[in-house]
Amino acid sequence: MKTYKIYLAGEFVETTETLEVCNPYSKEIFAQTYLAGEEIINKAILAGLEAEKEMKQLNSLQKYEILMQISNDILGDKKRLAAVLSKESGKPMRYALGEIARAAQTFLVAAEESKRLPKEYLSLDWTAAGQGKEGLVKYFPIGLIAGIAPFNFPLNLAVHKIAPAIAAGNPIILKPARSTPLSVLELAKIIDKTDLPKGAISILPTDRVAGNILITDNRIKMLTFTGSPEVGWEMKKNAGKKKITLELGGNAGVIITETANFENALAKTLIGSFAYSGQVCIHVQRIFVQHSVFENFVENFIAKVKQLKVGDPLESSTDISVMIDEDNASRVESWVNEAKAGGAKVLCGGNRKDGFYEPTVLTNTKSEMKVCSLEIFGPVVTLEPFSDFNKAIDEINHSVYGLQAGVFTNKISEMDYAFDNLEVGGVVINDVPTFRVDHMPYGGVKNSGFGREGLKYAIHEMMEPRLLVKSV
Amino acid sequence: MKTYKIYLAGEFVETTETLEVCNPYSKEIFAQTYLAGEEIINKAILAGLEAEKEMKQLNSLQKYEILMQISNDILGDKKRLAAVLSKESGKPMRYALGEIARAAQTFLVAAEESKRLPKEYLSLDWTAAGQGKEGLVKYFPIGLIAGIAPFNFPLNLAVHKIAPAIAAGNPIILKPARSTPLSVLELAKIIDKTDLPKGAISILPTDRVAGNILITDNRIKMLTFTGSPEVGWEMKKNAGKKKITLELGGNAGVIITETANFENALAKTLIGSFAYSGQVCIHVQRIFVQHSVFENFVENFIAKVKQLKVGDPLESSTDISVMIDEDNASRVESWVNEAKAGGAKVLCGGNRKDGFYEPTVLTNTKSEMKVCSLEIFGPVVTLEPFSDFNKAIDEINHSVYGLQAGVFTNKISEMDYAFDNLEVGGVVINDVPTFRVDHMPYGGVKNSGFGREGLKYAIHEMMEPRLLVKSV
Amino acid sequence: MKTYKIYLAGEFVETTETLEVCNPYSKEIFAQTYLAGEEIINKAILAGLEAEKEMKQLNSLQKYEILMQISNDILGDKKRLAAVLSKESGKPMRYALGEIARAAQTFLVAAEESKRLPKEYLSLDWTAAGQGKEGLVKYFPIGLIAGIAPFNFPLNLAVHKIAPAIAAGNPIILKPARSTPLSVLELAKIIDKTDLPKGAISILPTDRVAGNILITDNRIKMLTFTGSPEVGWEMKKNAGKKKITLELGGNAGVIITETANFENALAKTLIGSFAYSGQVCIHVQRIFVQHSVFENFVENFIAKVKQLKVGDPLESSTDISVMIDEDNASRVESWVNEAKAGGAKVLCGGNRKDGFYEPTVLTNTKSEMKVCSLEIFGPVVTLEPFSDFNKAIDEINHSVYGLQAGVFTNKISEMDYAFDNLEVGGVVINDVPTFRVDHMPYGGVKNSGFGREGLKYAIHEMMEPRLLVKSV
Amino acid sequence: MKTYKIYLAGEFVETTETLEVCNPYSKEIFAQTYLAGEEIINKAILAGLEAEKEMKQLNSLQKYEILMQISNDILGDKKRLAAVLSKESGKPMRYALGEIARAAQTFLVAAEESKRLPKEYLSLDWTAAGQGKEGLVKYFPIGLIAGIAPFNFPLNLAVHKIAPAIAAGNPIILKPARSTPLSVLELAKIIDKTDLPKGAISILPTDRVAGNILITDNRIKMLTFTGSPEVGWEMKKNAGKKKITLELGGNAGVIITETANFENALAKTLIGSFAYSGQVCIHVQRIFVQHSVFENFVENFIAKVKQLKVGDPLESSTDISVMIDEDNASRVESWVNEAKAGGAKVLCGGNRKDGFYEPTVLTNTKSEMKVCSLEIFGPVVTLEPFSDFNKAIDEINHSVYGLQAGVFTNKISEMDYAFDNLEVGGVVINDVPTFRVDHMPYGGVKNSGFGREGLKYAIHEMMEPRLLVKSV
Repeated sequence: MKTYKIYLAGEFVETTETLEVCNPYSKEIFAQTYLAGEEIINKAILAGLEAEKEMKQLNSLQKYEILMQISNDILGDKKRLAAVLSKESGKPMRYALGEIARAAQTFLVAAEESKRLPKEYLSLDWTAAGQGKEGLVKYFPIGLIAGIAPFNFPLNLAVHKIAPAIAAGNPIILKPARSTPLSVLELAKIIDKTDLPKGAISILPTDRVAGNILITDNRIKMLTFTGSPEVGWEMKKNAGKKKITLELGGNAGVIITETANFENALAKTLIGSFAYSGQVCIHVQRIFVQHSVFENFVENFIAKVKQLKVGDPLESSTDISVMIDEDNASRVESWVNEAKAGGAKVLCGGNRKDGFYEPTVLTNTKSEMKVCSLEIFGPVVTLEPFSDFNKAIDEINHSVYGLQAGVFTNKISEMDYAFDNLEVGGVVINDVPTFRVDHMPYGGVKNSGFGREGLKYAIHEMMEPRLLVKSV
Repeated sequence: MKTYKIYLAGEFVETTETLEVCNPYSKEIFAQTYLAGEEIINKAILAGLEAEKEMKQLNSLQKYEILMQISNDILGDKKRLAAVLSKESGKPMRYALGEIARAAQTFLVAAEESKRLPKEYLSLDWTAAGQGKEGLVKYFPIGLIAGIAPFNFPLNLAVHKIAPAIAAGNPIILKPARSTPLSVLELAKIIDKTDLPKGAISILPTDRVAGNILITDNRIKMLTFTGSPEVGWEMKKNAGKKKITLELGGNAGVIITETANFENALAKTLIGSFAYSGQVCIHVQRIFVQHSVFENFVENFIAKVKQLKVGDPLESSTDISVMIDEDNASRVESWVNEAKAGGAKVLCGGNRKDGFYEPTVLTNTKSEMKVCSLEIFGPVVTLEPFSDFNKAIDEINHSVYGLQAGVFTNKISEMDYAFDNLEVGGVVINDVPTFRVDHMPYGGVKNSGFGREGLKYAIHEMMEPRLLVKSV
Repeated sequence: MKTYKIYLAGEFVETTETLEVCNPYSKEIFAQTYLAGEEIINKAILAGLEAEKEMKQLNSLQKYEILMQISNDILGDKKRLAAVLSKESGKPMRYALGEIARAAQTFLVAAEESKRLPKEYLSLDWTAAGQGKEGLVKYFPIGLIAGIAPFNFPLNLAVHKIAPAIAAGNPIILKPARSTPLSVLELAKIIDKTDLPKGAISILPTDRVAGNILITDNRIKMLTFTGSPEVGWEMKKNAGKKKITLELGGNAGVIITETANFENALAKTLIGSFAYSGQVCIHVQRIFVQHSVFENFVENFIAKVKQLKVGDPLESSTDISVMIDEDNASRVESWVNEAKAGGAKVLCGGNRKDGFYEPTVLTNTKSEMKVCSLEIFGPVVTLEPFSDFNKAIDEINHSVYGLQAGVFTNKISEMDYAFDNLEVGGVVINDVPTFRVDHMPYGGVKNSGFGREGLKYAIHEMMEPRLLVKSV
Repeated sequence: MKTYKIYLAGEFVETTETLEVCNPYSKEIFAQTYLAGEEIINKAILAGLEAEKEMKQLNSLQKYEILMQISNDILGDKKRLAAVLSKESGKPMRYALGEIARAAQTFLVAAEESKRLPKEYLSLDWTAAGQGKEGLVKYFPIGLIAGIAPFNFPLNLAVHKIAPAIAAGNPIILKPARSTPLSVLELAKIIDKTDLPKGAISILPTDRVAGNILITDNRIKMLTFTGSPEVGWEMKKNAGKKKITLELGGNAGVIITETANFENALAKTLIGSFAYSGQVCIHVQRIFVQHSVFENFVENFIAKVKQLKVGDPLESSTDISVMIDEDNASRVESWVNEAKAGGAKVLCGGNRKDGFYEPTVLTNTKSEMKVCSLEIFGPVVTLEPFSDFNKAIDEINHSVYGLQAGVFTNKISEMDYAFDNLEVGGVVINDVPTFRVDHMPYGGVKNSGFGREGLKYAIHEMMEPRLLVKSV
């Protein structure tokens, strides 16, 4: 069984507490690593504080070269990395390979953006008081950052914290999910080969007590968290003086109108609904279809769902596999059962076997049901007809969440109405809310988040502006 | 005695709790107004939530015209408004008139910026996943805002919350300081004449319980506070899900080198040290003078301090008058006494009479003394020599605060070193840290603040980005 | 008869050559002014060169106040100014008042933009050669500018040269059209009351020889011309080393699809076709209507054309009046006759009486006819059906011109196709190509122009960037 | 002898007219290639026009990958390419290697910028006319471009036309200097391996008649020229309707003050004066040294000049070698002789042997002498003392040229005065005017140029904005 040391400020170390990593499909414990306790976390913080000055001194060229080296090394080893990721997370290889490519892209964009950090040059002579003066605004690294990443994109969502931190010139301590620490520890090996200052990066699975230090300690200047809403909002309260970014979940909705390209809508919503068993923050959970095309859509959609290939995530043809663990599969089962009890109709799926939950399509749901109102984070989607476009928009807004939404339409008026009225971070026209490219601004409103990621935006959040007022 | 009603969502109302307003110089209670309690605050919140939609619909032209009307009406009544402000705050008329002019300028810039809200247009086709797609980012008003303003710039610091809120399209509830509610209630009358939606603006002095609702209530989407560090950071913990901006204080430092224009340094530091008795967030508290010019500087500075005209704030020739209240004057007295006991030398001043504290210059201070390490918020400044420029920078950084700093020099190398190394929000070359024009980004780091004001920056903080992904 | 002196570098002067100004409607010569000859032009150039330094020194506040003063003074005298403009140009009062308001707006936006001149702050350390260096780019005024304005918007198109010149800090010599010099000479009186340096502005109708100096003289740094394509492109050849902007004409096309709002399309195209007798650079000359709605559109359109009120431009109810002169009316007549001879059908209008040409609608035209292929600059529009949207786009592109185009549609796919494929400077969705607000980028491609106007864009063209490379 | 075919729209072809390429150092004709005549140029134009559409369709990813491939392939063969460049131009290997690295960097930055093409998103509702409308500005490729490159940076200055053309989506016909066609024909082989549309790139040495077509033909939309001022400005007159960018020469000046780092000033001016025998547009031609340090500077500078290693450009230790041809060496000789006859003193150098001209330092020159007032483009520099900084600035401005200037100083006041008053495209503080990194805005004012290069800026010049006005 392979053992991964954890990455403490430029050193691979062991601790007294081991962490076993289980393949959710085979149930095999195929690797082990370590948990950092309080002492290790404190060392990581001290080393990070120590590295702040050196990180700040890195010039554009140095940051560019480091980030490009990481990007290239990821691409150079993509198959092996994808297999590690697939094994720890149960993610089908097709999607695991996609995530590896995206992680490389995230570093590549960070490399480019490290040369384009925000800078402003202002005139100040708008009143008598400012005569003869001009202003320069330069953004400086904010300081030591703590990043907490989830299991569902174990590599790329960690990279969305590490890459902008480096581009901005900040040290970072990254805590992966306990179930999926390996792909990001593989990344640690790649990072370790670069010229980054030794204390700049720590990648540490932690126990709860140690993890809590990352939230509360005021020596850490920023916390960037991707995970569940409950955990995230609780962190905000305890974050002390530090800045915080929260990338949380949602119950993303899609509207399909009669003017949309039908085949496109069908193909995209299928993937958006079931990729990685719906364990995606911007998973398609609620589909609203215009009355005139509803029946046709249902028929075709169900047919396609039934063709999804279920199996071992490591096989390249697999579309859908187990969920991350049996607890989650059980939770999904109970929510679907609640919906059925409340009158919902199961159009397909609806059964669980151990950690595997069938791709499931529901209709006749009510908005108060958990499958509608909470984040299901599983392979379940609801299909409902609508007559009035604006009411479908209201339906999507009728949620405590607001991450992204998709609208399939060819009407300008509907596009504009959706953009102006959907209470979400992103409105995706003619594609699913699941759409994300790594340089776009990404994040939610309402309970779905606080702040934005996407390289340029994340880098901006990780920097502090300083104004120079100079006499001309 | 004049009575001011308070401004609840477009109505001037009375409450059961009166608030007397005292002229700090004459000790006369010259006006009264009301405190809002829980019920009023709740009404203001409900009305604000109600107004969110109407505010969001305001187009650029409407916002521009409203904001320009307010700006012009302020200018049109500037002498009377300055007198109100001077009476409630004890601020000398010269400075009160300056503040009125700045409030008008703040609305004027907000008017212009309301036509230039942030908007982005992005290419998304950097990877295969983004082919055929483009992105638009539009910023939407964040929702109901709570603003809390201090006594020292009772009008303009409130305006720095109200004007950007309107420009961004947000309703706002503004709580002035209890000692200085009048000038902003005068503003309420000006605002009331505009076409703003009725519920959009409330201006409400509150008791402590009602004020606390503004901090904790999650229906409010953002809290923007200007005041003391202790109060500010405590608010951050209790702010729930809302966004927060804190504009706090500091112990601003100035460096004067031998290459600086001596007369300029002298004149500017005099004003920075004693304007409004130092009751200014960016008051000059610590002056470090290069060894070779130290003695000469001390001599000239003291001579000028002694010429400051003390008196009634309502007289146009008055340079310096009473502090806001006797408690503060006593606090300053005790800090200076602590310094004297510790070995500091009083070069001039050092005496208190009731609420009046003399303009005071100290030397031989130590960095742990309260007059150095805490925010004095009074007419006291320390003068110390230095030999090594970099150490003078370290001295300024040796503080829990970091708002602004001033550096008088004609050396490029010193300017660059200061910009790169002073841990503050703004480095002012050849002027005092007290320099602020209303459109520049303004705010502190470390304990001095969180986020930035200055119209464009404040407006940006008060908006939420939404991405539209469109197919080309 | 009123006599207007011309404006030479801050002085109102007479010359030996008088210029009579005729009211095109009444045929009355109602005013006279003067032509500048070579000597005067040379004085204007020398004074302009002299003023370059002083103009460059104007700070943001000074420029803002000057430009706002002009804007306010125009608004304060709008009725009288509109009457002058209407008399010299034959433009109906309704439109003349609109032009005066726009001229005030053009100065207002210039005032705001004068505080927001382009400035950049760059990192340069992307390679070893740039280590330790940063760049600032500041834009400096380009120097003396010559502006040449046409008769059809005698005030606002001159203002689109004068206002950005002032905002950028440049002196300017403005030559109005010989037929319409008065409204801009009225503007000269307003400008003369400001604190602008005396030599900064000249407003001089000229004879041909003197006018030619403005084109060829290398002491002038930029020429900005609005007028006919033939004249404009010839100027480019003779402009020597100077920069040039050309705002020329076109034969703007409109597409109306079946998904468009029919009433909106009808109302907008009516105005776009016949406002100021089509003597507008972005006059609607060619309308392509989707087959399914063509007949209905024709019927309604003709009915509305017949209701246009013909008469004295000075009456507020007049929709349409005489053309600028009889020559132009005759030219339009001959082009329509050529079209009729070639098989075109006159749906309404088609007759001339002296300088008045009836609002005329043609169909069955061919693209080679002058009414289609050349710029008609008269109250004539063609109406043709189309079946295939993309071919309608091709039809509009089948022209040597490319200024603006309008597309009435509610289809996203049509909007996107139009934007990506129409070879024009501006694509206007659900409005006519005649749409222009003064701060938008405006200008043509192909034979329709060179460079862009619109305040921010015009100011940018009138400035020269200078890079400062500084060591950090 | 190696024969290079020329690159006609994706094909390597021969013509009937051969062009021999001579090594300026060995006098050996070591390679030959071909001249394109009228027929070939016309084919290139037709193919280019044909390719416009396909180039316009390239998305960001495609352009990025093509440009990165070229950049990487250049780096992968840098030694061989540098040798080719050194042989054709006589440029010492040290500098030839630097140029190859810069060419790779120029493509790399173009790759990054191809993903960041200018895009704007505007509010239009500033007046009633714009209510409900917003604007998008997208930049489209301008169309077929002609680029003309000089001998002195035979590769990188050609790349500064080719790389932005590709990034912008334009086809380009590049004409290298007749003496140095080989390195860019090597580049053609690298380009040919990419997926660029076949007609997109032509690289063609031409005879005079064929070359003239590139200037006059209106099917070409833009001409970008780097070369001599006389030739450049003549082109502007004959360029018809096309856009033009001119990167011409100058007689760059440097100011060295007593506050500057002496060793830095010495080392940088030495390289700026003699690199590639001064055959550089931003060669240091005139050095003004503050009186107090003049003698010391002269002594040390002369000592260093005498240590320059003269020899075969192909040897890595060579600092300086022959000029491009004997004609140029003779011209330099005659200018220096004219200066001597007029009273100038030769501090070192001053002799010619065939095509080699000694590194030469003059003093006691007068500003009317050719060595001061014209562009010497040879290894000659003047050294003069100054007392008054502002007069030294005047001295530099006393020139028909204005490309870049260098100022060695540690005074803020001098830096600011220089930035505001030097009439040049770039002011370089504490480095020589010879400083250029490839992404910075670069170009001259007065007779030195028209427009700016530097990737972002060149790309911008090569695109045409198009506004979309959309209803919200």
